Amino acid sequence: MKYKSLALLLFSASSSLLCLGQTNSAAVVEDFKTTPTTQQEQKFPQVNSEGRVRVSISAPQALKVQLDIGGKKYDLVKDEKGVWTGESAPQDEGFHYYQLNIDGASVPDPGSLYYYGASRWGSGIEIPAKDQDFYALKNVPHGQLRETQYFSKTSNSTRRVYIYTPPGYEKDGKKYPVLYLQHGMGENETGWGNQGRTAVIMDNLIAEGKSLPFIIVMENSSNQGAPRAARPAGAPTPGAPTGAPAVQPTGAPMGAPPAGMRSMGAGQFERVLFDDLIPFVESNFRVIPDQAHRAMAGLSMGGMQTHSIVVANPDKFSYVGMFSSGTFEPKEIKDIDTFKKKVKVVFMSFGGREKGSVNIGPAAEEWNKVGIKGVSYISPETAHEWQSWRRSLHEFAPLLFR
Amino acid sequence: MKYKSLALLLFSASSSLLCLGQTNSAAVVEDFKTTPTTQQEQKFPQVNSEGRVRVSISAPQALKVQLDIGGKKYDLVKDEKGVWTGESAPQDEGFHYYQLNIDGASVPDPGSLYYYGASRWGSGIEIPAKDQDFYALKNVPHGQLRETQYFSKTSNSTRRVYIYTPPGYEKDGKKYPVLYLQHGMGENETGWGNQGRTAVIMDNLIAEGKSLPFIIVMENSSNQGAPRAARPAGAPTPGAPTGAPAVQPTGAPMGAPPAGMRSMGAGQFERVLFDDLIPFVESNFRVIPDQAHRAMAGLSMGGMQTHSIVVANPDKFSYVGMFSSGTFEPKEIKDIDTFKKKVKVVFMSFGGREKGSVNIGPAAEEWNKVGIKGVSYISPETAHEWQSWRRSLHEFAPLLFR
Repeated sequence: MKYKSLALLLFSASSSLLCLGQTNSAAVVEDFKTTPTTQQEQKFPQVNSEGRVRVSISAPQALKVQLDIGGKKYDLVKDEKGVWTGESAPQDEGFHYYQLNIDGASVPDPGSLYYYGASRWGSGIEIPAKDQDFYALKNVPHGQLRETQYFSKTSNSTRRVYIYTPPGYEKDGKKYPVLYLQHGMGENETGWGNQGRTAVIMDNLIAEGKSLPFIIVMENSSNQGAPRAARPAGAPTPGAPTGAPAVQPTGAPMGAPPAGMRSMGAGQFERVLFDDLIPFVESNFRVIPDQAHRAMAGLSMGGMQTHSIVVANPDKFSYVGMFSSGTFEPKEIKDIDTFKKKVKVVFMSFGGREKGSVNIGPAAEEWNKVGIKGVSYISPETAHEWQSWRRSLHEFAPLLFR
Repeated sequence: MKYKSLALLLFSASSSLLCLGQTNSAAVVEDFKTTPTTQQEQKFPQVNSEGRVRVSISAPQALKVQLDIGGKKYDLVKDEKGVWTGESAPQDEGFHYYQLNIDGASVPDPGSLYYYGASRWGSGIEIPAKDQDFYALKNVPHGQLRETQYFSKTSNSTRRVYIYTPPGYEKDGKKYPVLYLQHGMGENETGWGNQGRTAVIMDNLIAEGKSLPFIIVMENSSNQGAPRAARPAGAPTPGAPTGAPAVQPTGAPMGAPPAGMRSMGAGQFERVLFDDLIPFVESNFRVIPDQAHRAMAGLSMGGMQTHSIVVANPDKFSYVGMFSSGTFEPKEIKDIDTFKKKVKVVFMSFGGREKGSVNIGPAAEEWNKVGIKGVSYISPETAHEWQSWRRSLHEFAPLLFR
C-alpha cells in the first residue's frame, strides 16, 4: 500500500506536470508580430493576439535572461546558438514599460524603441488594442509637435517645452485656446508626445470634427531646473532588483512616491507655470490669453498638481482634467458662485482596474448639482497605465472650449 | 645560474606587471563627470578630461561585462557588490555611439540617452570638446524643432519630417530660405536634431549674427516607406559579435555598406524630395520657393545623395554642402555657364583623420576657377563622426543665402 500510494502520487504528479506543460504550450497562440514600438530594423520584441510579449536576444555566455514586464519576471530559454527567447503572460492593451534582465543586469531591450518613464529612458511595448484606431496615424491633416526652449526666471535655467499646434495653425493666422497637459511621476515633458500619442489623437479627433482645434503645452513638473548635483539622486539604486514596472507608479496606491523618485509639490511647478511658461506661450504663440480659453489637465501626479493648482488659482483655467489622479469635489472651492461663472468642466477619469474609479462618478454628480459640468470616465480593463490616459485625453478633448 | 636566471626572470616579470598596473592606474585621470548624454537621474556614464568613457552597471551574476566603443571592447571589473565598472581609452572630442556587452549580449547602457545610428536606437556619449561652446544651449532666442507628418505619393505612406524654424519665424510673417539637410547611412531623420544639435547650433549662429535665419528640413533618405515586410532585414544579425561602433560607417572607407545596412540610390529619395517633400514644405511653411533660396547638404551618404541629386538637377539648389561625402568637381557639370548663374557655393568638408580630406581643397579651387565659390573645411582631429558634421554645419550655414 505504501509503495502503491507513492507510485500513484508520482504518476499523478508527473501527469499533472505533463498536463501543465501541455496547457502552457497550447495556451501561447503563435501569431506573434512586431509592433509599432519595435525598432524598424529589428525582429523582436513581438506581440501576439493574446497580448503576450515575446523577446529574443543573443547572449551566448549568459546564465539567466529574463523579461521584466508588468511587475513580473519571465525566464527566457536559450537555444543552441545562444539566443534567448520567451514570452510574458498576456498584458493589458496599450503601452507598457519593460526591460530585460541579463545575469542580474537590468537593461533596455536592444530591439525596442525607448520612452521616458519610471525615472529612466528604457524599453516600451505597444499591445494592439480593440480601440487603437483613435491613436493610429492616418492620412488626415497633421498638426506639429514642436520642441523649443525658453528661459525660466524661477529655475534660472533654459527649459525645454513641447507644444502641439493643430492642423491649420501654421497658415490661418487665427488665435487658439490652450491646454496645459502634465505627465505623471517618473515621467517628463516627452511622455504625452511619445507614448501618449497626443498629436495623433488630436489630429484624428479634429479631422473627425469631434474636437475643436487647440494648442497643447507639455512641460516638466518634476524637474524644476535645479543644478544636477543639487537634485536628489533619482533612479533605482544600482544592484537593487527593481525593474521598470516595479519602480513606476503604475498600479501603486496614491501617496508616497516609490523610493528613488522625485516628487515635488504643486507649488514649485505653479511658479514656473504662472511666472514663466504661460507668459512665454502667450507672448510667442497665437493664443487667446484668458481663462475661458485656458485648460489644465494631467495624469497621476500631473492631475494631482492640476487639482491643487486649480483650487489655489480658481481664476486661471476653465477646464480641468484629472486622469488617474483622485477625486475633486465642489466642497474644496470656497467661493463656488464665482467659480461656476468661470469654470466650465471638471473631468475625472480612472482605469477600470484602479481603486479610485468608484469615486469619480459620484464626484461628477456633485459638480453637476452645483451647476458645473462634471464628467467621469472609466477606461475599460486598464490600470494605472498609458492606455487609460490616451483614452482620457480622447474623452476630455471634445469637451473643451465649446 | 639556471635558477638565478629564472628568479630574475620571475622578479623582472612581476615587477613589470606591477609597473604596468601602476602605469595604467596613473594614466587614468580621476576627474570623471556625467555628461549631457547621461540620463539625468543616473550617475554613469561619465567622461574624464582625457576623453575616457567610464561606465558602471550592476550585473551580479554576469561572467564578463565589456564597454564597446570606437571599435574596441574594454573589460569592466566587478566589485564585491556585483557592480561592474571600467573605462575606455581616450576618445575623440564630440559624440560617439557605444554599447555594453553582458555575457555576449550587446545592449544599450541603461545610464545613457539613446540616439539613432548604426541602424539602431542605442547609447551615445558626448565627450566635452574645446569648441563645444558653438553647440551649447544658451539663453538666446530659440527656434523650434518641429515634428510633423505628410503624405507621400511616391512611398504611398505618411512620412515623418523634422523642420527647424529659426527664432522670429513664429511671429514675423516673413518668408524664409530653406536648407534640406540629410543624415548618413544607418541614421534617420532624427540624427541632425538630436546628436547633430542642429537647432542649438543655428540658434547660436543667428544670435551672434553669423548666419542668416533659414528653415532646415530633415527627412529620411534611407527609408522610403516600403512596407516593413518588404524591406531587407536590417540591423546586425542576432548573435553576431558586432557592436554599434563596428557596424556604423564611422571611419569606414566609402563604398559598400556594412552588411545588414540599408543603402539606397539617390533616385528613390530624389522622387520623394521633388514630388512630395519640397511641395509639402513650400505649400505649408512660409518659404521662398525658388532655387536662389534653396540649399541642400548632407553627411556621408546624405552628402553623396546631395551630390548626385545636384548633378542630375542643376536647377534646384543654389548652395551645396557635402560633409565627409567625397569630392565634387566642376567637370561633372555639363553646362557650367548655366550652372554658375544659379549655384553660389559648393562646400566640401571632412574630418582631418579621414582620407578624403586631402582632396577637397584642390576641388574647391577648381570651383573658384570657374567662378563659383568653392569652400573646403577640415575638422581638426576628428574622423567620420558627428563632431566633424556639427562643425561642418557651423561652417556651412554662414555661407548661405547671402
